[in-house]
Amino acid sequence: MKWVNKSNVLIVGLGLMGGSYAKAIKRIGHHVLAIDKDKEAIEYGLANGIIDEGADHDDPELIKKADCIIIALYPSIVVKWISENKGFFKKGIKITDVMGVKSSFLYKVQEELADTDVEYISAHPMAGREVWGVKNASDKIFRDANYIVVPTDKNTEEGIMWCENLGRVLGFYRVSILSPEEHDDMIAYVSQLTHCIAVSLMTCEDSVKAKDYTGDSFRDLTRIANINGTMWSELFLLNKDALLGQIDKFMSEMGEIRSMIEKDDREGLKDKMRLSTERRSQFNKE
Amino acid sequence: MKWVNKSNVLIVGLGLMGGSYAKAIKRIGHHVLAIDKDKEAIEYGLANGIIDEGADHDDPELIKKADCIIIALYPSIVVKWISENKGFFKKGIKITDVMGVKSSFLYKVQEELADTDVEYISAHPMAGREVWGVKNASDKIFRDANYIVVPTDKNTEEGIMWCENLGRVLGFYRVSILSPEEHDDMIAYVSQLTHCIAVSLMTCEDSVKAKDYTGDSFRDLTRIANINGTMWSELFLLNKDALLGQIDKFMSEMGEIRSMIEKDDREGLKDKMRLSTERRSQFNKE
Repeated sequence: MKWVNKSNVLIVGLGLMGGSYAKAIKRIGHHVLAIDKDKEAIEYGLANGIIDEGADHDDPELIKKADCIIIALYPSIVVKWISENKGFFKKGIKITDVMGVKSSFLYKVQEELADTDVEYISAHPMAGREVWGVKNASDKIFRDANYIVVPTDKNTEEGIMWCENLGRVLGFYRVSILSPEEHDDMIAYVSQLTHCIAVSLMTCEDSVKAKDYTGDSFRDLTRIANINGTMWSELFLLNKDALLGQIDKFMSEMGEIRSMIEKDDREGLKDKMRLSTERRSQFNKE
Repeated sequence: MKWVNKSNVLIVGLGLMGGSYAKAIKRIGHHVLAIDKDKEAIEYGLANGIIDEGADHDDPELIKKADCIIIALYPSIVVKWISENKGFFKKGIKITDVMGVKSSFLYKVQEELADTDVEYISAHPMAGREVWGVKNASDKIFRDANYIVVPTDKNTEEGIMWCENLGRVLGFYRVSILSPEEHDDMIAYVSQLTHCIAVSLMTCEDSVKAKDYTGDSFRDLTRIANINGTMWSELFLLNKDALLGQIDKFMSEMGEIRSMIEKDDREGLKDKMRLSTERRSQFNKE
């Protein structure tokens, strides 16, 4: 399928991300099917015109119709879902996903599909929010956000292009490509480490008593401390090695700054702040 | 003086905060004088109507005119400035300030003034920005921000009320009162610790290579990594004990979360995230 032709797009998992994909994909004219074990999510999707057809179980008839599939499940259950339903896949379809960690399941999924003509191309839409569920879905969350295609050597050039094009039609600001290992390492730094920090900042002190005195900086740093524990604990554990490495680097750096404060090393602190300011300024250029 | 009557208000130090005070105070009809050793700052203030009169040195004639003084200098030089210029103060005036740490200099300043009839009431306008200098001054930075009056037992009820009223006429969202020790401990947590974290996050890794993949969370956490090193290294060192205490609490909490990840303690992680979400939700209620 090409994203310009009207197709049947099946979304598996109708939460915040699945629902947001559904809205964007329906807007550009496709027929959107959805499966979610939560009956309420499906009913909400149908009642609000977010999806065209839906089922609260793995309905073979719905799966057979799909010209492509977008998987928006928790990473730990993707392999199982593929294994149980691959018999119903239309010939030669493409499958993509939305999960925030890759190495831990991607190779297994592709192995599971090795005996089929179905191509699985992984992607990470970096457009999370601190809210969840289809009721909070919005196709506007993709604007200004990054979309990363994460291919392996099992993917074809055509498959990768198809997945890049999905990122573009969804309206992402930037579409790029990383290997699963590069992706997981980068995401441990820019996303998982920041969530660990935000949570620690809220739990290390009775932060509520500070509520009346917080400035913008504290609010900015802890916005993501409002966190879906089920999803993020899974993401942390599935990316354990990369995340522990990043936590260690960060804590060692905090330790260095702590020691500079203890020793009244004003010049050392200024050097750190100069480097930090210089690096941060490059983030503002666009 | 009362803030409702037209008075001569002297601002010592015409940087971001001094300039923002000047704009707000002139807007409500006062005559604004300023002293700053940086000639350019004074010239900019005069040319742009931010101040009415100015001097690039401690001009006795200007100081003698002042019905009240707002000190916006680095904390380390306040005592010296007061000591050198107190001979020129008008009888019975009130002095306030804007500095972000208190215990380290406030008692000394009040001691310096003990033989005069001048009252010094300290305050902390929590309205910093990542830019500095009078050219970035704006009286809009006080909106939605907190203003804390930090009295000691040397202050009178009238002096404290005068200082609270200044916070209100400047347009702050919330005006409250804390002791110097409560203030310094709280500020170590909500402001200085967050700046340490943001700097560490930028310097612990070659963050620039991650630029193309950052989501909102990373950008939010590092906005304040763009930092005035001279000012912040001074603030850190002047509040050393409180800040080290907060860094230790935070790092011990990060260590606990690290260990939960290492041991696959999913329930422990979920508990932390539940507490963090619950606390953070109380910050959104207004």
